[in-house]
Amino acid sequence: MAKPKKPEIPETMGAVCAVAYLLALIVFIPFAFYKDIVAATSGGGNRDVVIEVQHIETGRFLHRFPHGKLASYLSGLLSLQCIVILGIGDDLLDIRWRHKVLIPAFAAIPMLVVYLVDFGVTHVVVPVPLQPYLGGFIDLGWLYYIYMAAIAIFCPNAINMLAGINGIEVAQSLVIAVLLLLNDALYLAPISPYPHPATDSHLFSIYFLLPFIGVSAALLWHNWYPSKVFVGDTYCYLAGMVFAVVGILGHFSKTLLLLFIPQIFNFVYSTPQLFHLIPCPRHRLPRFNASTGLIDASVTEWTHPPSPLIASSLELLHKLHLVRVQRNSIGQIIESTNLTILNLWLVWMGPMREDRLAWHMIGVQTMCGLLGLFARHRLALLVFNQDNRSFHSVV
Amino acid sequence: MAKPKKPEIPETMGAVCAVAYLLALIVFIPFAFYKDIVAATSGGGNRDVVIEVQHIETGRFLHRFPHGKLASYLSGLLSLQCIVILGIGDDLLDIRWRHKVLIPAFAAIPMLVVYLVDFGVTHVVVPVPLQPYLGGFIDLGWLYYIYMAAIAIFCPNAINMLAGINGIEVAQSLVIAVLLLLNDALYLAPISPYPHPATDSHLFSIYFLLPFIGVSAALLWHNWYPSKVFVGDTYCYLAGMVFAVVGILGHFSKTLLLLFIPQIFNFVYSTPQLFHLIPCPRHRLPRFNASTGLIDASVTEWTHPPSPLIASSLELLHKLHLVRVQRNSIGQIIESTNLTILNLWLVWMGPMREDRLAWHMIGVQTMCGLLGLFARHRLALLVFNQDNRSFHSVV
Repeated sequence: MAKPKKPEIPETMGAVCAVAYLLALIVFIPFAFYKDIVAATSGGGNRDVVIEVQHIETGRFLHRFPHGKLASYLSGLLSLQCIVILGIGDDLLDIRWRHKVLIPAFAAIPMLVVYLVDFGVTHVVVPVPLQPYLGGFIDLGWLYYIYMAAIAIFCPNAINMLAGINGIEVAQSLVIAVLLLLNDALYLAPISPYPHPATDSHLFSIYFLLPFIGVSAALLWHNWYPSKVFVGDTYCYLAGMVFAVVGILGHFSKTLLLLFIPQIFNFVYSTPQLFHLIPCPRHRLPRFNASTGLIDASVTEWTHPPSPLIASSLELLHKLHLVRVQRNSIGQIIESTNLTILNLWLVWMGPMREDRLAWHMIGVQTMCGLLGLFARHRLALLVFNQDNRSFHSVV
Repeated sequence: MAKPKKPEIPETMGAVCAVAYLLALIVFIPFAFYKDIVAATSGGGNRDVVIEVQHIETGRFLHRFPHGKLASYLSGLLSLQCIVILGIGDDLLDIRWRHKVLIPAFAAIPMLVVYLVDFGVTHVVVPVPLQPYLGGFIDLGWLYYIYMAAIAIFCPNAINMLAGINGIEVAQSLVIAVLLLLNDALYLAPISPYPHPATDSHLFSIYFLLPFIGVSAALLWHNWYPSKVFVGDTYCYLAGMVFAVVGILGHFSKTLLLLFIPQIFNFVYSTPQLFHLIPCPRHRLPRFNASTGLIDASVTEWTHPPSPLIASSLELLHKLHLVRVQRNSIGQIIESTNLTILNLWLVWMGPMREDRLAWHMIGVQTMCGLLGLFARHRLALLVFNQDNRSFHSVV
């Protein structure tokens, strides 16, 4: 939208990427379970594995095909397919955002249902300071399902909300995916002791993330400023759902949220407009200035002056440099910048070119994510007994 | 297309049905596995089941959650979602039929992959007359996968091909689904001895068919002559894929084909036009005669007279009442009816109203299907040792 000329641009290229991604995941199934097929069919040539199986069968354990792992992979895939179907519907039909936010909830159903049917683990580790009161573990029961559903609703909408300039949706998703991959790599040999109880969860996560990074990189190539294609809601939903799936089924949803710091900030910062305390225009993307070729923070105009409470809140935010307001000659607020992280950044840094803002956002996302991961693996020892990277843990 | 007036009609109502169907299947997962959840978690109140489990655990078997069954349910669901995604894409993009026929092949991948990973049973029972040469069972290996893929490609395209008048796609699907349900019911208590080795496969099939019958009935209500909505390719593909999924994962694909007799006839009968031995117009649906309000067989026009071989073949078919040709004054063939079962029926029965033709087709489908099922359960004893309804069997 922020271009001097306005050519027609294909809008739902995200759907094409999504289908390619799903096909890649489906075709990968036999590779993900190759080791188990060989072991379970006891043919397959790998003598070491076969001997181990025979040995195990006579012992306490029975090596068998990990149907549970397969079911969890398939349920993740089902949720992703659901979100793609609903996302395409959304791109075509232009649903109101009030109804849109619940789309990921429908898509989360297969994952949650399979979790309920197949695993049903709803215990979480209690932080050390609370352990005297609550014990080592607490069974959240159905609250845990609410929590998972909330993650699944939040992630896609958070990605979708931090949008408005070319390439930003794909770029932020790519940063988050790469950081998640980094986190997964920490659990794999030779960095971690093998076999580690969380190795499988993180391998699972890598299976989902690698092809996602592939299609996202290809999409970013065409979607980067100046965009030749747009991604549509389908991509944003898919990206968020990929993160929700690996976070939930890989049992590291808290770590996941640490990588969403800019999105969480953007959401919290937007709430006054979402709840219409401050007028909210249809689009809040930064404003393009055709004479300079730069973009600047967009504003919402106050047709009626705000109520005293809101006026003084805006005044406070203005002093904290969290919003920029303009007053008329008699001191009434006539416009304030829209409450998105992109506009805030432009308030802080001044007008800049669209691609420069996208680069800045990539930097912010990367820094916040790295800080989050550092906190996760170093500072977590303060509230939990151990970092699960080095030793057993349940959740 | 065969209406005096041509109002705008929503074309992709099949996609809406498909999404409703998928949601129903997803939400049904916990109910399908309820008994197993109760047994596996050993809580759940049903004392009989719990006692039985404890008893079994001390015996030879270990009652555990049937992950394999869940994986097979999920893989069926994945294939259906795939076909819906690709079907919607097809409805939107208008792909050439040469590429369209392969769409179900992509959608079959998840099912086949999960079959490969999780079950891998590729033995089939050999008919008695061949047993001296081949033994009791034969391992088809990868040929069995080709066979399953062929079923998955054939069923959706067969449904899609028998189209052209209001309601016919939905009506034929509904008849096939109800007949399959009837066949499933034969395997359930109290008709069959319980527990029967095939009970689970047929329960699985019922889970998929009941909601399908529900959405199809709703769709038929609006799609019946005169149509208020069209179903689009999405519905035809979905219907065919539902049948392929239950046939393949329920291990009764041969029985399934017996219910597709009119479709198989339609396909074989169409081949001369599909391979362009006879000119093939874009649409071959029956021709509407606005003056009588009836429809009659549509024709393909021979701009050049046919080659002698084709001319004599057409002459033969004409004598067999399998096609109707028209000649000009010097005896050259100038037009012949299009080779579809609908046109053939009109050649036999004469022009009729569109809904009457649809009723006739429902009758044909039902009669052929009932005959097929009768052959399956009574005459199968001639080529196999036993009907698997009454006793053990492998495939």
